[in-house]
Amino acid sequence: FLKTPQTIGVTCVPFSGGQPKGGVDDGPVEMIRFGIVDQIEGMGYDVSISDGMDKYRSMRPASDPPVGKLKNPRYVSLAARRVADQVRAHCASGSLALTLGGDHSIAMGTLVGSTAVYGDDLCVLWIDAHADINTPATTDSGNLHGCPLSFILGLCDKQDHSADDGLFGWIKPCVRTDSLVYIGLRDVDSGEKAILRKHGIKAFSMHDVDRYGIGRVVEMALDHVNPERTRPIHMSFDVDALDPSVAPATGTPVRGGLTFREGHYICEAVAETGCLVALDLVEVNPALGDPESLRQTVAVGCSLVRCSLGETLL
Amino acid sequence: FLKTPQTIGVTCVPFSGGQPKGGVDDGPVEMIRFGIVDQIEGMGYDVSISDGMDKYRSMRPASDPPVGKLKNPRYVSLAARRVADQVRAHCASGSLALTLGGDHSIAMGTLVGSTAVYGDDLCVLWIDAHADINTPATTDSGNLHGCPLSFILGLCDKQDHSADDGLFGWIKPCVRTDSLVYIGLRDVDSGEKAILRKHGIKAFSMHDVDRYGIGRVVEMALDHVNPERTRPIHMSFDVDALDPSVAPATGTPVRGGLTFREGHYICEAVAETGCLVALDLVEVNPALGDPESLRQTVAVGCSLVRCSLGETLL
Amino acid sequence: FLKTPQTIGVTCVPFSGGQPKGGVDDGPVEMIRFGIVDQIEGMGYDVSISDGMDKYRSMRPASDPPVGKLKNPRYVSLAARRVADQVRAHCASGSLALTLGGDHSIAMGTLVGSTAVYGDDLCVLWIDAHADINTPATTDSGNLHGCPLSFILGLCDKQDHSADDGLFGWIKPCVRTDSLVYIGLRDVDSGEKAILRKHGIKAFSMHDVDRYGIGRVVEMALDHVNPERTRPIHMSFDVDALDPSVAPATGTPVRGGLTFREGHYICEAVAETGCLVALDLVEVNPALGDPESLRQTVAVGCSLVRCSLGETLL
Ligand SMILES: [Mn+2]
Ligand SMILES: [Mn+2]
Ligand SMILES: [Mn+2]
Ligand SMILES: [Mn+2]
Ligand SMILES: [Mn+2]
Ligand SMILES: [Mn+2]
Repeated sequence: FLKTPQTIGVTCVPFSGGQPKGGVDDGPVEMIRFGIVDQIEGMGYDVSISDGMDKYRSMRPASDPPVGKLKNPRYVSLAARRVADQVRAHCASGSLALTLGGDHSIAMGTLVGSTAVYGDDLCVLWIDAHADINTPATTDSGNLHGCPLSFILGLCDKQDHSADDGLFGWIKPCVRTDSLVYIGLRDVDSGEKAILRKHGIKAFSMHDVDRYGIGRVVEMALDHVNPERTRPIHMSFDVDALDPSVAPATGTPVRGGLTFREGHYICEAVAETGCLVALDLVEVNPALGDPESLRQTVAVGCSLVRCSLGETLL
Repeated sequence: FLKTPQTIGVTCVPFSGGQPKGGVDDGPVEMIRFGIVDQIEGMGYDVSISDGMDKYRSMRPASDPPVGKLKNPRYVSLAARRVADQVRAHCASGSLALTLGGDHSIAMGTLVGSTAVYGDDLCVLWIDAHADINTPATTDSGNLHGCPLSFILGLCDKQDHSADDGLFGWIKPCVRTDSLVYIGLRDVDSGEKAILRKHGIKAFSMHDVDRYGIGRVVEMALDHVNPERTRPIHMSFDVDALDPSVAPATGTPVRGGLTFREGHYICEAVAETGCLVALDLVEVNPALGDPESLRQTVAVGCSLVRCSLGETLL
Repeated sequence: FLKTPQTIGVTCVPFSGGQPKGGVDDGPVEMIRFGIVDQIEGMGYDVSISDGMDKYRSMRPASDPPVGKLKNPRYVSLAARRVADQVRAHCASGSLALTLGGDHSIAMGTLVGSTAVYGDDLCVLWIDAHADINTPATTDSGNLHGCPLSFILGLCDKQDHSADDGLFGWIKPCVRTDSLVYIGLRDVDSGEKAILRKHGIKAFSMHDVDRYGIGRVVEMALDHVNPERTRPIHMSFDVDALDPSVAPATGTPVRGGLTFREGHYICEAVAETGCLVALDLVEVNPALGDPESLRQTVAVGCSLVRCSLGETLL
């Protein structure tokens, strides 16, 4: 799917509007400071970085009252739309689109961007402790980082969020429910459970990781959305999929997560398919925890990116 | 086996007489303070709690010299007999009998109580770092929390503990050796090893968990005692089955135990059978370790109970 | 392969010349202080200990300039040659040769010693985060603890290290590349990767441990070098194969390693074959980390030794 020699198009999104905790907007700069760009170049890739990383902060509207329960709806919509443009540009040029967040609401943008180029053929691996599939109707908190998939899959009732001139009207359903698969779930709201069941969305919870082992889980997940390993893959990796002992500096940690090695195994196995065209690495929050927690979380985030791009142990 | 709508009958046993460390008698109150009852009710169960939780403390005899090597024999016998009555009443009423310990010697009572109702049909899952199958003759320490199964299985030589008018004569052998299976063993006395071998008792040690993975181990364990998934199950869960990094606040921690997820997997898989009729959660000792260790151990204990009662990730 | 009743011949090698950090030469004395000899005797073995443990320290030449990139080449060669003599004597007498390091360069000696008795029939399990297969040409650091296998397998260009009168000329190639198998690799230099590929050397990295589970990995590793379980086994266990959370006091820790249980599983499974004739336990460095890290690392090292010699959970 990608041009040769391979290039990586990086989109940095210092954005925290999809949830209440400050600091996650410093995720991209910390990963860059840790050397992720040099590391990727050292692997032999050409790297280009989207301009205007600073603009994300200045996009926040002066006034942004809730629409229904949704918080910061205008800010999230504006930012995600800009992300979509930048990711689409990378994909259109034949680069692998790497997006460094920021909270997970930005995936509204990354998926609109990647599907604009790859269309229906694209399949999605969502690696997360959470399902992030609340609709404006089912969300309790109103935090949009818990909702991106309901927009992308077209599960929102139009009434729900169009009160203010169709704020999210630019997001057309662009991923089919059978093109999505989850790994790592362990904290799913009851409204989300109902959605997963109703639409038959395939999800491998931590229970499945225990039952089958990570090797078989990844194989089954890929078999579900990409049986021939011929479809382009967009992997959206929330670091809170990892156990808090592995990635402590994140906003909504949940016990019983992926081990260091299981997280890396997923990335290595996806890299082996040769089908990865877009990767999101989100929810690294440098403001949470002590310096060692931060260093550890940033390091593991960068390591997951490198493994997804082909770094191997042997 | 149970009535519908399902009810849970809780027996709280603030008892520490089966071993030398104080504090394990505060296990039940800490789990209740953490909200276990409300949590279970929130899952849709009716909950009834046995009266007279305070009586366990006042049962301690003024004088209770050892009988042979056994320590506090009268106190253990009195308490376990009361536990047996309370658990039998819950089982007889069609409730799932949940017993919160206290040290593991109280399982003499819980198993006498559950088998009084379910008889020979009942099978037992014993989740523990230890085999708890010493006889009065093989025990080194004389702590009765290391002995309950030898009484229940009828492995004790009558001479051993009847010096004082058959102190434990009320316990008739009530579980067959092929109706018992262990998971989690890793600290077994040589006398116990000999007993396990002599009677062909099935045990999955941590070595087996490593070899086969927890998924297959639970399946093999259930296949051994409950091949058709038609027999009622009594699960006796000692929190020291978990690794000390997961459940530090317990009296006899042993390295190399079940992970957070493996422990929960066992409970989830047992819940899926629909056969659970009695559950013991024992050896939470709030007096051991710092406040965070305590909080963590109580939290994991309550979480194991909820998962055993049907809480799922998806 | 061994005489009955079985005896263990212990070689203590307080040696740190194969790498730059002091302290690893105190590994043997700390394991002995922890009671490893008594523990082994308690398992029913006769134990004999090679004389002259102190001589290793006094062997350091007054002047030992690098040969090519290799550091301390004369010292390493002298020490390893003495190790070879001691290990050969143990093997020749029918004892299981247990060598306590010291850094991993001493395995040049242990393998020369064991193959002197068992010849081509011997197979080698190398448990390590690292491949330790750099040649004098490929090594970056010049630390010989990263090179022992290239000498043993005969992969070094003679020119490389013979500048000074064939310093390592006493090491004849004594293990075939298809008689060696690795478990635990996760930090392999690019030159080493090329060597592994060129010679088709079988290696199970942590990725494989994740994919297959440790049970199947050990089985596949043994099937590769010892399909009938009829060949004598030399296991060389570097404690840095374990995760740093399990064995922190070591010179070159690498994240994502074997768990406590996986490490023990390997030893237990090797013991079960009945084929173990030589065991190295290396790279315990008491000078690194706090007292608790030290205690933990020494304890796990001794525990791995006991399990390799037949200690079981049940
Ligand atoms: Mn999440
Ligand atoms: Mn997320
Ligand atoms: Mn126990
Ligand atoms: Mn117990
Ligand atoms: Mn190493
Ligand atoms: Mn090594």
